[in-house]
Amino acid sequence: MNNNKEQNQEIVLAKHPSGAVQADNFKFNDIDMPTCKDNEVLIKSLYVSVDPGMRGFMDKGVDDAAGNKFKLNQPITSRTVAQVIDSKHNNFKKGDIVHGRFAWQKYQTVSTDHIEKVDPTLAPISTAVSMLGIPGLAAYFGMLNIGQPKKGETVVVSGAAGAVGSIAAQIARIKGCRVIGIAGSPEKIDYLENNLGLDKGINYKQTEDITAAIKAACPDGIDVFFDNVGGELFDAVFANINKHARVAICGQIADYNEENPPQGPRPMHKLIKKSARMEGFVAYDFSDDFENAKKQMSEWYNEGKLTYKENLIHGFDNIPAAFMGLFSGENIGKQMVKIADAEEF
Amino acid sequence: MNNNKEQNQEIVLAKHPSGAVQADNFKFNDIDMPTCKDNEVLIKSLYVSVDPGMRGFMDKGVDDAAGNKFKLNQPITSRTVAQVIDSKHNNFKKGDIVHGRFAWQKYQTVSTDHIEKVDPTLAPISTAVSMLGIPGLAAYFGMLNIGQPKKGETVVVSGAAGAVGSIAAQIARIKGCRVIGIAGSPEKIDYLENNLGLDKGINYKQTEDITAAIKAACPDGIDVFFDNVGGELFDAVFANINKHARVAICGQIADYNEENPPQGPRPMHKLIKKSARMEGFVAYDFSDDFENAKKQMSEWYNEGKLTYKENLIHGFDNIPAAFMGLFSGENIGKQMVKIADAEEF
Repeated sequence: MNNNKEQNQEIVLAKHPSGAVQADNFKFNDIDMPTCKDNEVLIKSLYVSVDPGMRGFMDKGVDDAAGNKFKLNQPITSRTVAQVIDSKHNNFKKGDIVHGRFAWQKYQTVSTDHIEKVDPTLAPISTAVSMLGIPGLAAYFGMLNIGQPKKGETVVVSGAAGAVGSIAAQIARIKGCRVIGIAGSPEKIDYLENNLGLDKGINYKQTEDITAAIKAACPDGIDVFFDNVGGELFDAVFANINKHARVAICGQIADYNEENPPQGPRPMHKLIKKSARMEGFVAYDFSDDFENAKKQMSEWYNEGKLTYKENLIHGFDNIPAAFMGLFSGENIGKQMVKIADAEEF
Repeated sequence: MNNNKEQNQEIVLAKHPSGAVQADNFKFNDIDMPTCKDNEVLIKSLYVSVDPGMRGFMDKGVDDAAGNKFKLNQPITSRTVAQVIDSKHNNFKKGDIVHGRFAWQKYQTVSTDHIEKVDPTLAPISTAVSMLGIPGLAAYFGMLNIGQPKKGETVVVSGAAGAVGSIAAQIARIKGCRVIGIAGSPEKIDYLENNLGLDKGINYKQTEDITAAIKAACPDGIDVFFDNVGGELFDAVFANINKHARVAICGQIADYNEENPPQGPRPMHKLIKKSARMEGFVAYDFSDDFENAKKQMSEWYNEGKLTYKENLIHGFDNIPAAFMGLFSGENIGKQMVKIADAEEF
């Protein structure tokens, strides 16, 4: 491995976006190939995940406690599957597949405190950032711990063809619920009804009165609403909730690009009237139980009860485009960028 | 007892209100003195409760499942403490104190299915519709089951000088929390700080930047928010919630007189960011456990840990005014109308 600038590249935050993210918010730099020190590994990025939630980290402003905000002229980071190329730590050896929140760099050194090994026997390694990664874990805990679906109940999932929604909807099916998925294209509806086996898909973009359509699709009302979208679509589903409904607030992609907190009908009256619960969460709230969840999902996957879809975009150069594509509503399944195949060592 | 029309009176819904309730929404009728049939009792109203939540029952429209809507030219009903004057049921005898949701009538007959005996050893009988009635039970279950306050946490209660808020705030104190009460007059703040022993009262009507005032009063953020008010005051408190906060939505008095669902900032982003929960409820959600709650509150009352205040307005004629007064924000404690003293038989 020579210390050749052409070999390594990074993508940094060139300026904070205002409103929708544009190509000029990013900048590519050629950088040196790093070498690892004690307790570090040198890794090569294989699969880079792009997630709607990252949008918030791009804004200017005071950093949050978790230090998530991206800094100007510093590399963007996101969940990545990588391969160990060189190791200065006994627990990791050349060839190991690992994942973590890594920089958008082709090669980088990371402290072994910040990486986790991927178990390739559970499912294909790319799933470490999709079905068995944060999106799948958010779906798992949001549906089971917050939604608490019971057999025979009606569950609605918005953004149902996405990385989180598709897993959440399938888990509700596994639990014996009637599951309605909402998505925004005929291809997605086909995917929901014919690949995921949901009871019904609703294309909100081709439905004039979405509240009425949801009501018609849920004659017994809605017991669990797993929301990835927010905005007016939230209102339409929320209008149909049952007594003691659970609303898991996972994402609000409709609003991520808004600069001010969006306005809408206050949900409090309905929450009282229905003795209903609305709860926000992130997957990390349940991190103590991640390993069990991965094992359970891997089991369902191997039994053919749970499937996943990755929308793979190829090439390091296309990472910004893959990220921006999340907000156009086109992607089915987990949006990610494949940089390289794992090598045999 | 003579069948004399002068002796009995009722108050009916004369017309549905649009916006704020007015005197002409009510009409007084002289009516016959009824006589009771088998399994009925004849009761005399002693204490009539007026509650903000009744406002919703006055609107025109389809009835809800519980049949709560008031009908035109039919008597208004509300929680009432009454005395049995005549009984055609073995379990009830002349002189017994009972409570239930009764008509706004001086005298009426009711089926014994719809009445409950008041245990006068727990606390004064009027508390059957205040501290030990639905307001107190809403406070108890909303604070303990939904708010789940832990020792050392910070709890904010809005409408803290009201029938529900004053009990909820005291229960949080009993649980070892730092409790901030929000109310709307100097008299109420004095009551919160000097009678209820809260850590601080905030007069939102005399505070320019209420969000900042709440932040200053809650240097460690807010773990539990028990909301009786809604609207912009909700937003100001909600802006200061901590990670894993619980928001119990009990009432939204700011909005009861609004004809359309009010608009406001959508709370979903914050719920995700804080992994926080917002839950609506009514006391009846917990009716299986009412007796235990009454016993516990009675115990606290007798130990001097829990106190209550009733804002007694005197005379049957003043029931509508007492109800309308709820929305002017003047009353401290439980607003109720005393019609008569219990008699010795």
